[in-house]
Amino acid sequence: MRDIYHEELDGISDKLVEMTRLVRSAMTRAVNALLDADLRLAEEVIGGDDRINKIDAEIEETVFDLMARQQPVAGDLRTLVTALRMSGDLERMGDLAVHLAKTARRRHPESAIPPELQVIVLEMGQIAERMVAKAGSVIASKDVELGMELDADDDAMDRLHRRLFDIMLSPKWQHGVEPAVDISLAGRYFERFADHAVHVAENVVYIVTGQRPEELNELN
Amino acid sequence: MRDIYHEELDGISDKLVEMTRLVRSAMTRAVNALLDADLRLAEEVIGGDDRINKIDAEIEETVFDLMARQQPVAGDLRTLVTALRMSGDLERMGDLAVHLAKTARRRHPESAIPPELQVIVLEMGQIAERMVAKAGSVIASKDVELGMELDADDDAMDRLHRRLFDIMLSPKWQHGVEPAVDISLAGRYFERFADHAVHVAENVVYIVTGQRPEELNELN
Repeated sequence: MRDIYHEELDGISDKLVEMTRLVRSAMTRAVNALLDADLRLAEEVIGGDDRINKIDAEIEETVFDLMARQQPVAGDLRTLVTALRMSGDLERMGDLAVHLAKTARRRHPESAIPPELQVIVLEMGQIAERMVAKAGSVIASKDVELGMELDADDDAMDRLHRRLFDIMLSPKWQHGVEPAVDISLAGRYFERFADHAVHVAENVVYIVTGQRPEELNELN
Repeated sequence: MRDIYHEELDGISDKLVEMTRLVRSAMTRAVNALLDADLRLAEEVIGGDDRINKIDAEIEETVFDLMARQQPVAGDLRTLVTALRMSGDLERMGDLAVHLAKTARRRHPESAIPPELQVIVLEMGQIAERMVAKAGSVIASKDVELGMELDADDDAMDRLHRRLFDIMLSPKWQHGVEPAVDISLAGRYFERFADHAVHVAENVVYIVTGQRPEELNELN
């Protein structure tokens, strides 16, 4: 029985990695939809979210099923609960990519991102993609060091987020209210996406070490 | 042993209700801080969030401790995992009240909310307060009917959220970019707050009936 149990745990881990791949792909396309006003990409992200939600539901079902059938011990229970949380975080990240895609769709055929913000949004997208890719590697490899790297990426995202606001609120801003509203919200979506990626990695660190990253940092 | 176990489950439920009270109070003060540019209220919300986070951490500790010591059966495990989720939702709702309070603080001594939006923001705040108060009642009473009422409140919140944007994006808008940025984000915080309140109530419905509200609605 224990072997089947651990096979099923591996299955959950594989599904989480698959979610990171789908979320990364959704984010890549959402950013390009925003920058290039590409309606087809936007629709792909919006239509593709069901697949991410479906895997989240499958993971939840497997976790509750394992809990019911196997009476796992404390450490394994913690792993299962943590898997649920990671799945929830990844599901939200998919939703945030959808929000970005919907912004692109609403503004089509124009781009929602004025020229002077294109590079910043491109960079925010690249950091977001990197963070979810790293989260996937951390889940697959249980690499605690890599897991703790995401904090630095998150700081970089916060810096870009502040620059976005500085530009919008400067007297030189020529684009008026509507793009500012879109970009405020888009900035928030990127920031939340990064936060969720950090949580995913933190949860792996927690499973492996039994400690939260902030506790590990205090020890160093 | 089972009696102590159920006492501890009741203790978790009491803590969740206490969280709803603290979150409601934080939201009330945050909205008044926004409308009246009241710095003292804003600081209270920002400083008070630790208490909400502390209860969230206590619930998590109790849940993992119960799982480890009591080897609960499937139904009880589901209740415990669901309690963790509710606690997480309420913790986020506290954060969203803090975001609103920080917006008020950043704009002080001015109000972040222009006169023509004060009534809408007041109403959004009232719905938010009602939703978290209802969520608290639903946790305490396990009242499934009341739990299913929150969807209607959420719809009302969405309608106000859309009106907020309609006014900001109308040609009559005179307040420029900076208030529009604040209000876009504030609107998003209210909307997310309502979503989390719906999730809390849904989770109670799930514990009591074993079904998600959308499944119950399909049966009706």
